[in-house]
Amino acid sequence: MRNIKLTVAYDGTNYHGFQEQRGTGLATIQETLEQCLGRLARRRVQVIGAGRTDSGVHARGQVVNFDASGWPIPVERIPLALNGLLPGDIVVTQAREVEENFHARICARSKTYRYTIWNSGIPSPFHRLYSCFWPVSLDAEAMSAACTYLEGTHDFKCFQASGATVKTTVRTLYQARVIREGPVIHFVFNGDGFLYNMVRIMAGTLLQVGMGKIKPESIKTLIESRKRALAGPTLPPQGLCLERVEY
Amino acid sequence: MRNIKLTVAYDGTNYHGFQEQRGTGLATIQETLEQCLGRLARRRVQVIGAGRTDSGVHARGQVVNFDASGWPIPVERIPLALNGLLPGDIVVTQAREVEENFHARICARSKTYRYTIWNSGIPSPFHRLYSCFWPVSLDAEAMSAACTYLEGTHDFKCFQASGATVKTTVRTLYQARVIREGPVIHFVFNGDGFLYNMVRIMAGTLLQVGMGKIKPESIKTLIESRKRALAGPTLPPQGLCLERVEY
Repeated sequence: MRNIKLTVAYDGTNYHGFQEQRGTGLATIQETLEQCLGRLARRRVQVIGAGRTDSGVHARGQVVNFDASGWPIPVERIPLALNGLLPGDIVVTQAREVEENFHARICARSKTYRYTIWNSGIPSPFHRLYSCFWPVSLDAEAMSAACTYLEGTHDFKCFQASGATVKTTVRTLYQARVIREGPVIHFVFNGDGFLYNMVRIMAGTLLQVGMGKIKPESIKTLIESRKRALAGPTLPPQGLCLERVEY
Repeated sequence: MRNIKLTVAYDGTNYHGFQEQRGTGLATIQETLEQCLGRLARRRVQVIGAGRTDSGVHARGQVVNFDASGWPIPVERIPLALNGLLPGDIVVTQAREVEENFHARICARSKTYRYTIWNSGIPSPFHRLYSCFWPVSLDAEAMSAACTYLEGTHDFKCFQASGATVKTTVRTLYQARVIREGPVIHFVFNGDGFLYNMVRIMAGTLLQVGMGKIKPESIKTLIESRKRALAGPTLPPQGLCLERVEY
């Protein structure tokens, strides 16, 4: 096996998420990548993604791997060759040959997600597809204080979409940060794993803190409650971006 | 007459330019604005734009004016009311009541345009609709030096799209600047008026300077030649943005 790791950036606006949806006819990132890889390889190629992203969610640093056995193409030429076939909203930013046992999902040590808020009284036509418009002014200091309660190893069940089923809802959030750049507010989360919709619900909860509806220190009891109903709303997908996958 | 001045931002990607194209069925910024104003006013409303923008060109500060005689709506409520009707890619950022004789086009003293380059070996899915991708590295200092030769009152015929007809091709460029922010390069031009495609051709010429194909000081003789063929290529529309109109 010749195992190739790709780093992929995409604007998820026009896709029904990362994962292939066989037989539905809906375009996904995975299928689009596999089609272009298949054209290069002249055979069916299957990619393994580090993590699924939902419909409308973006990525700057999604990671996939695939078997390139028998390909004559040198690894450093793969980005250019693939980008020539891919639509403009999916870009391969890096390709590397990795060990046979590298698996994009299983080997991931941590992931970094960013949720972006356009915090201004006036919406922006240029940010509408890459942020959540929030016209009410937000207290960044309170949100930063709330972040300290999010960090650590916790049972994050209150931030999991209801109905999701996983073995354990315990995760470790290494870092949660608030970055303000004028009307743009970023929430950056780095953790060993994320529950379904966890980032979008944490972001919705931070907004409640920023508006003074939840006190920063109440995050502690919210987490302990394990009750989804006590957390904030699930923010829309277009503000979310998978920034990096760490190995 | 109750004369209202609106400042409008738009993502021009999905429009066939600013100006209405009667009977073509193609969506333009002007028609979309007029339709929404018409719904508010319950009668036909015609807007006057400060300047046309071509298909795919954006604006952060386009200015229009229209007659709001008989409207009961207070001017400060117009942005919110209009933005509720407009699609997300057109946003009214300001509304002001102005003197009867204000005319968005005729009264404009100067305009500021920005042309944006994504100067990186790897394209960006997030900048593809708002910049021109240019993978060859560019010498920002040489381009800045070239800008000093662009500034001033000149016959800019060499930067006018061939075939365009205007009375005079003399214009005054008050300022031409190069701003680099990582992989993003902005060319900012402020002038009393611009010929057809002038900004996109000046930007294409600056790229030639940045690649060492034209010397900065050759801009002087290029302008004196008045020959379109000696200037650089017309860069694509998506990198262009009408930033501001000054009155």
